[in-house]
Amino acid sequence: MNPPIGIISMFYARPFLAAHFPLFERMKRAGMDFVELLVPEPGELDLARTRDALRDAGLGVVLAARVNLQRDLASDDPAAHAAGITYLEYCVDTAAALGAQIVGGPLYGAPLVFAGRAPTPAVEAQRLPRVDRVVAALRRVGGRAAAQGVRLAVEPLNRFETDFASTTAQGIELAQRVDEPAVGLLLDTFHMNMEDGDLPQAIAQAAPHLVHFQANECHRGFVGTGHVDWTGVARALTRAGYAGPITLEPFRRSEQRLGVGLAQWRAPTEDEDTPLAASAAFLRAALALARQEQA
Amino acid sequence: MNPPIGIISMFYARPFLAAHFPLFERMKRAGMDFVELLVPEPGELDLARTRDALRDAGLGVVLAARVNLQRDLASDDPAAHAAGITYLEYCVDTAAALGAQIVGGPLYGAPLVFAGRAPTPAVEAQRLPRVDRVVAALRRVGGRAAAQGVRLAVEPLNRFETDFASTTAQGIELAQRVDEPAVGLLLDTFHMNMEDGDLPQAIAQAAPHLVHFQANECHRGFVGTGHVDWTGVARALTRAGYAGPITLEPFRRSEQRLGVGLAQWRAPTEDEDTPLAASAAFLRAALALARQEQA
Repeated sequence: MNPPIGIISMFYARPFLAAHFPLFERMKRAGMDFVELLVPEPGELDLARTRDALRDAGLGVVLAARVNLQRDLASDDPAAHAAGITYLEYCVDTAAALGAQIVGGPLYGAPLVFAGRAPTPAVEAQRLPRVDRVVAALRRVGGRAAAQGVRLAVEPLNRFETDFASTTAQGIELAQRVDEPAVGLLLDTFHMNMEDGDLPQAIAQAAPHLVHFQANECHRGFVGTGHVDWTGVARALTRAGYAGPITLEPFRRSEQRLGVGLAQWRAPTEDEDTPLAASAAFLRAALALARQEQA
Repeated sequence: MNPPIGIISMFYARPFLAAHFPLFERMKRAGMDFVELLVPEPGELDLARTRDALRDAGLGVVLAARVNLQRDLASDDPAAHAAGITYLEYCVDTAAALGAQIVGGPLYGAPLVFAGRAPTPAVEAQRLPRVDRVVAALRRVGGRAAAQGVRLAVEPLNRFETDFASTTAQGIELAQRVDEPAVGLLLDTFHMNMEDGDLPQAIAQAAPHLVHFQANECHRGFVGTGHVDWTGVARALTRAGYAGPITLEPFRRSEQRLGVGLAQWRAPTEDEDTPLAASAAFLRAALALARQEQA
């Protein structure tokens, strides 16, 4: 069977509130098997009602954690580090309440551009304790996750979004150091396109740790409209025996006026369900072909 | 004849000072036709001595301008905007003094991650005057450049490095609005890999404006070690009749320790001339094959 394919909630709306529950049926009609919800901040969503709405629409759910400089496992500020642990525990409990089995994202913290932080040289005397802090915290939260049937999926981000883990190799090193079955990896082809020289090889190397996947085009438009080698990616996922969820996050809107930045989030201005459905169909077909090829 | 291939000075050293002049011969031995020098800040280099050292080594020279929030054509702070114009005029005069014919870079300003600035939504009432400011300033400095036989090569940067011009299409729109023969485009495959869905098509569309090119691998390692479609790029440049300089900027070092950020500049820790020469040979061969194919 193909891995389930889903859509990130902020494709449609941010923040995602109860008023947006009717979107669940629309996602389903566009061919989505699940929604990846940004972890709601306290009070944003009633979890029991959200779980009911997802069930009514026949959608599964995966959670995306949101870190910042105030909740940051990598931080040398004890308060920010502690708040990072508290937040991840909150994410795990929220997942359990929603019936989600995966909490993904750059769980280690250390945001750059979206926190307005510029890259600075890594000093070895700071780097080593930073790695140790992240590893210990992920192990600790991983234990809580395991007890609730939830897994953490740690995502390497491109060099401009973090200075902690950017390549798949760095992600694998982190997963190996944490060495806790409930803590695995999330790979996102948008970041891999920038940081990995050979995407299929990176997927093969990460296979033992892979619990979540995000299929994003090079420019973050719809899958199939850029130059990512999707048949190669589909073959690699199939060879890796990957059966976990695959999320689409096509944030980039069609208009390209000069002086409109591409990294900022923008709400959709037109109905994008048709290209979304086409991207999902394209990816499903590539995965099916890879499965037949390897049968 | 193949376009000349060169190397950015900060591959070796930053800042680049008179003590580094012996590197010119080393660049030449690694197969470089020219060096792309970061525009020296006042006092960093004696221009007459630098010109002599370049001539002695048999190297051509292209200049790379460095903008920041204090010299920024896009800024709505009149002082920063004016300083941006003064700086670009300085760059043009420096080019003339060094015998360089091209000043390239994100000349419009508007830096993001390297200035510690986070992406924020573009407000239309601010976007339009910002575009007008940049266009008027580039036209003005372009006139000064033309008078000295220098051309400005405006470079779109990926979404995390600027919020002014990221796609090749945005770059073309800017060049068309400036409409001054001395103001053209610089395309860099590192940024194109993130922002353009089809690199050969983007090169074809930009052809009438293209005055400079930077050949960088997807992950900014050595050309030929990632997944950029170099035969496609070489064919597109050849079909476009491109005969300008091609600069290599392989900043990424081989070590990938967890927690060592990839966006920060790091000095080389080993002799990298051999892979540099191999990248240049690879690119020259791809260009030669494309030329034979189209002869």
